[in-house]
Amino acid sequence: MPTFFPQPIDASLVPRFAGLPTFMRLPAVTNFEDVDIGLVGVPWDGGTTNRAGARHGPREIRNMSSLMRKVHHVSNIAPYDLVRVGDVGDAPVNPIDLLDSLAQIEGFYAKIHRAGCIPISAGGDHLVTLPIFRGIAKHRPVGMVHFDAHSDTNDTYFGNNPYTHGTPFRRAIEEGLLDPKRTVQIGIRGSVYSAEDLDFAKAVGIRVIHMEEFAALGVEATLREVRKTVSDGPTYVSFDVDALDPAFAPGTGTPEIGGLTTLEAQHLVRGLQGLNLVGADVVEVAPPFDVGGNTALVGATLMFELLCVVADAQARQRTIREESPAEVEQ
Amino acid sequence: MPTFFPQPIDASLVPRFAGLPTFMRLPAVTNFEDVDIGLVGVPWDGGTTNRAGARHGPREIRNMSSLMRKVHHVSNIAPYDLVRVGDVGDAPVNPIDLLDSLAQIEGFYAKIHRAGCIPISAGGDHLVTLPIFRGIAKHRPVGMVHFDAHSDTNDTYFGNNPYTHGTPFRRAIEEGLLDPKRTVQIGIRGSVYSAEDLDFAKAVGIRVIHMEEFAALGVEATLREVRKTVSDGPTYVSFDVDALDPAFAPGTGTPEIGGLTTLEAQHLVRGLQGLNLVGADVVEVAPPFDVGGNTALVGATLMFELLCVVADAQARQRTIREESPAEVEQ
Amino acid sequence: MPTFFPQPIDASLVPRFAGLPTFMRLPAVTNFEDVDIGLVGVPWDGGTTNRAGARHGPREIRNMSSLMRKVHHVSNIAPYDLVRVGDVGDAPVNPIDLLDSLAQIEGFYAKIHRAGCIPISAGGDHLVTLPIFRGIAKHRPVGMVHFDAHSDTNDTYFGNNPYTHGTPFRRAIEEGLLDPKRTVQIGIRGSVYSAEDLDFAKAVGIRVIHMEEFAALGVEATLREVRKTVSDGPTYVSFDVDALDPAFAPGTGTPEIGGLTTLEAQHLVRGLQGLNLVGADVVEVAPPFDVGGNTALVGATLMFELLCVVADAQARQRTIREESPAEVEQ
Amino acid sequence: MPTFFPQPIDASLVPRFAGLPTFMRLPAVTNFEDVDIGLVGVPWDGGTTNRAGARHGPREIRNMSSLMRKVHHVSNIAPYDLVRVGDVGDAPVNPIDLLDSLAQIEGFYAKIHRAGCIPISAGGDHLVTLPIFRGIAKHRPVGMVHFDAHSDTNDTYFGNNPYTHGTPFRRAIEEGLLDPKRTVQIGIRGSVYSAEDLDFAKAVGIRVIHMEEFAALGVEATLREVRKTVSDGPTYVSFDVDALDPAFAPGTGTPEIGGLTTLEAQHLVRGLQGLNLVGADVVEVAPPFDVGGNTALVGATLMFELLCVVADAQARQRTIREESPAEVEQ
Amino acid sequence: MPTFFPQPIDASLVPRFAGLPTFMRLPAVTNFEDVDIGLVGVPWDGGTTNRAGARHGPREIRNMSSLMRKVHHVSNIAPYDLVRVGDVGDAPVNPIDLLDSLAQIEGFYAKIHRAGCIPISAGGDHLVTLPIFRGIAKHRPVGMVHFDAHSDTNDTYFGNNPYTHGTPFRRAIEEGLLDPKRTVQIGIRGSVYSAEDLDFAKAVGIRVIHMEEFAALGVEATLREVRKTVSDGPTYVSFDVDALDPAFAPGTGTPEIGGLTTLEAQHLVRGLQGLNLVGADVVEVAPPFDVGGNTALVGATLMFELLCVVADAQARQRTIREESPAEVEQ
Amino acid sequence: MPTFFPQPIDASLVPRFAGLPTFMRLPAVTNFEDVDIGLVGVPWDGGTTNRAGARHGPREIRNMSSLMRKVHHVSNIAPYDLVRVGDVGDAPVNPIDLLDSLAQIEGFYAKIHRAGCIPISAGGDHLVTLPIFRGIAKHRPVGMVHFDAHSDTNDTYFGNNPYTHGTPFRRAIEEGLLDPKRTVQIGIRGSVYSAEDLDFAKAVGIRVIHMEEFAALGVEATLREVRKTVSDGPTYVSFDVDALDPAFAPGTGTPEIGGLTTLEAQHLVRGLQGLNLVGADVVEVAPPFDVGGNTALVGATLMFELLCVVADAQARQRTIREESPAEVEQ
Repeated sequence: MPTFFPQPIDASLVPRFAGLPTFMRLPAVTNFEDVDIGLVGVPWDGGTTNRAGARHGPREIRNMSSLMRKVHHVSNIAPYDLVRVGDVGDAPVNPIDLLDSLAQIEGFYAKIHRAGCIPISAGGDHLVTLPIFRGIAKHRPVGMVHFDAHSDTNDTYFGNNPYTHGTPFRRAIEEGLLDPKRTVQIGIRGSVYSAEDLDFAKAVGIRVIHMEEFAALGVEATLREVRKTVSDGPTYVSFDVDALDPAFAPGTGTPEIGGLTTLEAQHLVRGLQGLNLVGADVVEVAPPFDVGGNTALVGATLMFELLCVVADAQARQRTIREESPAEVEQ
Repeated sequence: MPTFFPQPIDASLVPRFAGLPTFMRLPAVTNFEDVDIGLVGVPWDGGTTNRAGARHGPREIRNMSSLMRKVHHVSNIAPYDLVRVGDVGDAPVNPIDLLDSLAQIEGFYAKIHRAGCIPISAGGDHLVTLPIFRGIAKHRPVGMVHFDAHSDTNDTYFGNNPYTHGTPFRRAIEEGLLDPKRTVQIGIRGSVYSAEDLDFAKAVGIRVIHMEEFAALGVEATLREVRKTVSDGPTYVSFDVDALDPAFAPGTGTPEIGGLTTLEAQHLVRGLQGLNLVGADVVEVAPPFDVGGNTALVGATLMFELLCVVADAQARQRTIREESPAEVEQ
Repeated sequence: MPTFFPQPIDASLVPRFAGLPTFMRLPAVTNFEDVDIGLVGVPWDGGTTNRAGARHGPREIRNMSSLMRKVHHVSNIAPYDLVRVGDVGDAPVNPIDLLDSLAQIEGFYAKIHRAGCIPISAGGDHLVTLPIFRGIAKHRPVGMVHFDAHSDTNDTYFGNNPYTHGTPFRRAIEEGLLDPKRTVQIGIRGSVYSAEDLDFAKAVGIRVIHMEEFAALGVEATLREVRKTVSDGPTYVSFDVDALDPAFAPGTGTPEIGGLTTLEAQHLVRGLQGLNLVGADVVEVAPPFDVGGNTALVGATLMFELLCVVADAQARQRTIREESPAEVEQ
Repeated sequence: MPTFFPQPIDASLVPRFAGLPTFMRLPAVTNFEDVDIGLVGVPWDGGTTNRAGARHGPREIRNMSSLMRKVHHVSNIAPYDLVRVGDVGDAPVNPIDLLDSLAQIEGFYAKIHRAGCIPISAGGDHLVTLPIFRGIAKHRPVGMVHFDAHSDTNDTYFGNNPYTHGTPFRRAIEEGLLDPKRTVQIGIRGSVYSAEDLDFAKAVGIRVIHMEEFAALGVEATLREVRKTVSDGPTYVSFDVDALDPAFAPGTGTPEIGGLTTLEAQHLVRGLQGLNLVGADVVEVAPPFDVGGNTALVGATLMFELLCVVADAQARQRTIREESPAEVEQ
Repeated sequence: MPTFFPQPIDASLVPRFAGLPTFMRLPAVTNFEDVDIGLVGVPWDGGTTNRAGARHGPREIRNMSSLMRKVHHVSNIAPYDLVRVGDVGDAPVNPIDLLDSLAQIEGFYAKIHRAGCIPISAGGDHLVTLPIFRGIAKHRPVGMVHFDAHSDTNDTYFGNNPYTHGTPFRRAIEEGLLDPKRTVQIGIRGSVYSAEDLDFAKAVGIRVIHMEEFAALGVEATLREVRKTVSDGPTYVSFDVDALDPAFAPGTGTPEIGGLTTLEAQHLVRGLQGLNLVGADVVEVAPPFDVGGNTALVGATLMFELLCVVADAQARQRTIREESPAEVEQ
Repeated sequence: MPTFFPQPIDASLVPRFAGLPTFMRLPAVTNFEDVDIGLVGVPWDGGTTNRAGARHGPREIRNMSSLMRKVHHVSNIAPYDLVRVGDVGDAPVNPIDLLDSLAQIEGFYAKIHRAGCIPISAGGDHLVTLPIFRGIAKHRPVGMVHFDAHSDTNDTYFGNNPYTHGTPFRRAIEEGLLDPKRTVQIGIRGSVYSAEDLDFAKAVGIRVIHMEEFAALGVEATLREVRKTVSDGPTYVSFDVDALDPAFAPGTGTPEIGGLTTLEAQHLVRGLQGLNLVGADVVEVAPPFDVGGNTALVGATLMFELLCVVADAQARQRTIREESPAEVEQ
């Protein structure tokens, strides 16, 4: 067990508006080995088909994350006491070269992964989850709990372009990085290009929970579906803020009305406690459209919620590792 | 059955931010006979008693409607395959002359109506529904499903002015355009001028469902009330965005907190499928107060929701007409 | 019973955007004896630890209160017919001197109290409730229905500073102004500094209803808890707008996602009818962060909701007083 | 000479954000006889042909006028020591009836005029200057110094409507209220409907100083033209904020780039000292388009600048009146 | 000479907020042969190295161009009477593929050029000028009057990427599309990467007029430099809105303070009358950063200013062509 | 001469929106001895009498400073090659205790000063310059070039409070920290509390250049006055952004129209090259009022401009020190 646990700056001593805005006011860490969980930014939106701006997401999420404190008020998880957490900086990106960006992001995450560090990321558009998967899931596919208004399993755009923020999960499945049978999507809604839009998702076995099904099921039943789907295998959580209703998260590129409330989202994320979580992200926070900054606050809070359940999972993994290391699969 | 069905521009080929922002990216149509449903703008807010701005509604709703796609994800209604739909432009208006505007709008809708075209309109303030009724309902009164925070059945303002956005439905009832017994109002709330404010509505037989009654009934029971009230006669749907809570639709002139969520509104509109719908509107979207543009997105999405149920109704009418034309009443 | 009841300007005669924006368009009153209930502003945010701005709250709440009308649409309470209500102006404050401000505010409220006038106040940050209590509760502690995301019972900040907007209720309890056993807090949530954050509140007997407990209980059961806690003793209502989700009230200094909706808040406030209410406030509306002005509208509407239940309580007190004055305790 | 001079609230004692926002924090006055100069709001924009919103101008100008102090830093004019100034409230208006509004505004100004009070007004759109003239200039035409991007001497709009904010000065000339030969327009610019647009202005003898001529002449030479044109007859100053470049005054309905800077405008207004000024207004401040509130600040500051030169003129008139009353013409 | 000249919708008949927002409210034209000057949008910002958003430029410039009228108030040029002008739509683009976009834009402009139509374009980021040049200047290099804060003659970014909005003119010179000796840059300023940043520009002979030199020279002397540099050869005008100070044009991706005023810019553009103009563009209007919309208004007005001088040039070319066609070089 | 010079991150390699926003993207430095010039934030606005928000200034100025590059385009000063510059973090502050803040800030600057490091600071409100002076000027008074709309030499506010952002320079003179005879104020303007407002400034010998005098003198003559006043003694530069017109710097608490343009300000700051500069600050950037972020950009650019002239002064001091150390006075 590590002996040094980085701690956020205390807002009752140093006001929240002071100092450099690292994630959660944690120390900036340059050596991935020094932390169990690395908070990462991916300032890139080159896969965006409509309104760009998510490239500015990490900065504003960091900025608003100064409002976070240290202990979860419901689960009592105190992540900074359980595991070592730090701000490991931004993945390198190229704002004018999609393929170069995918390669650079993948390389950054491969290094994080090799260091035994779990990434919790702030996007960027949703395409960034693909190179994250390439960096951390090449040795075995992961399952996924996917919050989104859109399935993001389209095939191509604008004449055969395979890489946009509407296609990452079809690519990830094709590449064997994502196990569709251990994937559940929550909050899907909005008009579609054609009645066949979700045929791929269904064909490969993704459990799609439309917004309307969620509204009918409620939080608890939905969580049962989630647990049934992802089971105890390694699982990634990807939270596109457009899963939320734009009243709660206006600053995003492809808003769809009729979405989740923040309270529902928080209940759902809290319900992931106990899963075998190997990474998470919050994507599609687009500050230029985030009048008032609430979406960045939502993004920062969801990162804290995710951090709590991932830290809890990590702490339990460590216990298992310390007791019987052979059983651990990440 | 028509042989040519206009289609929206496909956003997976031409990005959403490109091109002229017609409603739903449909072709602009100048001949009303060419379409079964005409999407119309009424850029006029001369009946507004407080914060004007709805005159800019049609432009911004058109702008945000580029985010809409082609098929409804719940009902699977594909409106552009069922009926011919087009953007038939804006009704002529006079920003400095109320009576002239009422006359011009009425004339425009009368032409649309004579062409056998069903109008789905974007206002404009709520007074525009009165000249729409004059244009399409002179031969028989219509019933109405009316979403609103306000009953809009006041008598006069500012010393005997009979025409404001607070009076259209009293006028419509007086003129025999609207059947109060086949009218239901949903979402009514907010402090009132006096305890007698709703006496007229009740006296003429309008079924008023206050926000609080809706919250108690829920969507399904409310829809049963709606169906019971409007039955199978010709029915118009008028959606004032202030029916929604201002968190969901801030860009409006007379916001009242404690309103509908967008998801509730969508469920209610979807539940109108099967009614004999002869027209619809979305009014009171006021872009100068719509910080972030979400209200225009809400307006565009509600227009699409309304389009789906009206197109479905039209398609069924066409089937009936083709089989037994004498029975059709519009 | 008084013979003259001040009335708001009628918006169907004088448009809402005209004239000086007093609270509810009521007359400005300089003699506290002339009214039974005084609407007061406290334009001060010197206790704010993060984002200031609530000093501008009274002006913007007054501005948006022009949208209010005269009669409550659910309870039918017509406050201006029951009691004499007026805008009694702003408490004197000192933007650069915390202790001087506390003293001046206390003095202002002591005068209001001595005049037999009940204050309903618009803050200002939450520290202002402390000098209000000092002004009106020195002779006996009050109970409190407290809506907030935060318990505001911390001890000190920034090295032993006892007075911030995070500490008022610990001070009030220590000073014997607030009876913790007759205090209930609703909506508490968000990450905390440490697991011990609420130990004081629990130790002194405050009934803390976290947001999650409220969500599980629902409005009616929560109100039962409220009534059980405060019983029929003199009770103050303090509404921090951050009790609401920032989607509904973005303009505040310490937003926490996952909060109340306005409709829930309204139901809760309406449910206070029948309590022995001796004052109320709406605090932490911070216009510089209130993009679009919705939070000020929420603040104005909550003031009207509070006015209705307080006026009702006052009217009943008057009846009792007139019948058996000895029993009245304020 | 009067013995009581109303004074603004002192911001070094009561902070600027406190209290009711009367113009310049002056007392609200209900008896026009009590003041020599009345600051008036005209919250009406019914003559607007494009973007409405100036109806909200008086409120926001009052709000920002709290930033004004008491003495002019260049001229050393201390208006509140020279004459009695007060906020005399808003003219009555009817937001849905143009002709009724013109009549009500005229009546209000006629009363002000009969009381011997000079009005300095905050609009409202530019059509409000017409009923002001009808109220104060029926007995003799006034000259005018007119700052504007537009000549506002068009004939009709939207099919023979004679009254819009593009027509007031043609009407005023036709009605004998405005002497075109004693009228100078400064800042005129922007594309025109046709090459004949200014033919009327030229035909009746208005001295039109286009923005480009002003840029070539500079402030001093322009002021010489002004003085030459209006001479020592009774002169009104009408300042449409769109005379300013929209960088300086974005919150207006018909912005034209390439306009005056505020410093130029201030120099020009200060240069009117010594003229025989009988009234002034600042119009077309449209808060819904005034992101950040700077235009309202500009409006408030220009009102103060105008107040200084008008107060100076009034004080000199009084001296003359006291010495040789027969010579005074207003 | 053509017999039909398209005309904008008249705002004194149809209000500016009505109807589809084509450029200048001109007819949408699909056949390039039908117009002498085509107003084009290029909704693409894939070359942006920092803050994207110019992809939304064409829509908002079209929207604000409804404020334009028909005749220039200084030059009296009436462009719609001189030549046939229309809105020819948007160039096809691919938001996620830079090279594909360059190819598609080039193809669109090549078609425009072959039709004998002169394009005046609204970007898009500044890289779009490169494919425009490829479309219209392959047969002979053009000279350029270039307004910008940046020289845009860098070599590569992000590791050898040759195409960004900081490199178009180095590429254009290398490709023989732009004659550097006939190129003048006005408004260049702001901190630079290194003292060598402008070495290329100087080496190839571009006449660089830094903001400071412009301030010293003034408009007229600058225009003499312009005319001396570009002489009477075919000349393109490229106006990056960041040439303007961000007070005048905040909505752009790389603002630099200390820039041109709009009035200076207008004077400079007007001074281009008489040059042999073969195309023009206004680029880098980025609506997501354009709080209040003023930058789009600036963009629309500059397009009108450019239209006037280009139309004048075209009309004179036509006269020459009709008299002695052999001499015409475009 | 130092051997290691910290350099900003290169925006042509790492995009500007990536990474932690230190000032100018320089390394964060914790040891003051490691740099010759320290860029410092003072996130505190407890001296603000009206609109607070400058506490958020350092964060937003840091954020926008990512737009700065390395070499000055006019002076060719390359500050990072001349001296060692770093981001030394924020001074400790206490948002609810004025005197504690003054003490903590003073202590922080005293340490910086003892380390031989020159501070260039981002405020915070203007009161912060007082503790800066206490930290760096106790051993000898400094002269000052002071850009501001206000003289900030008032005596007391709100009843004998000696410390507000309107009083720092009277206090500094009284304490012998500031030499009034070597102090020049530029840009002073706006209405004043009384005609005696500037009596103190004049009495102690401050050279006050009102905005109007600046406009008459022009940049060069003003700079001659500056040099004459401050001569070659140690001189501090304090730039309150409200010296600028609010069109250029809207995000500030006490805006006054009719101010400097950014280009004028830049010319003035550049003209300070050659003075004996011992520190500088940019204050009163208030992000909550900075719609669009332009004021923060202005603040960042002015810091870069100041850095260039201070670095140049430092480099020259070093040369002198290395040649004849006895002569140096700081």
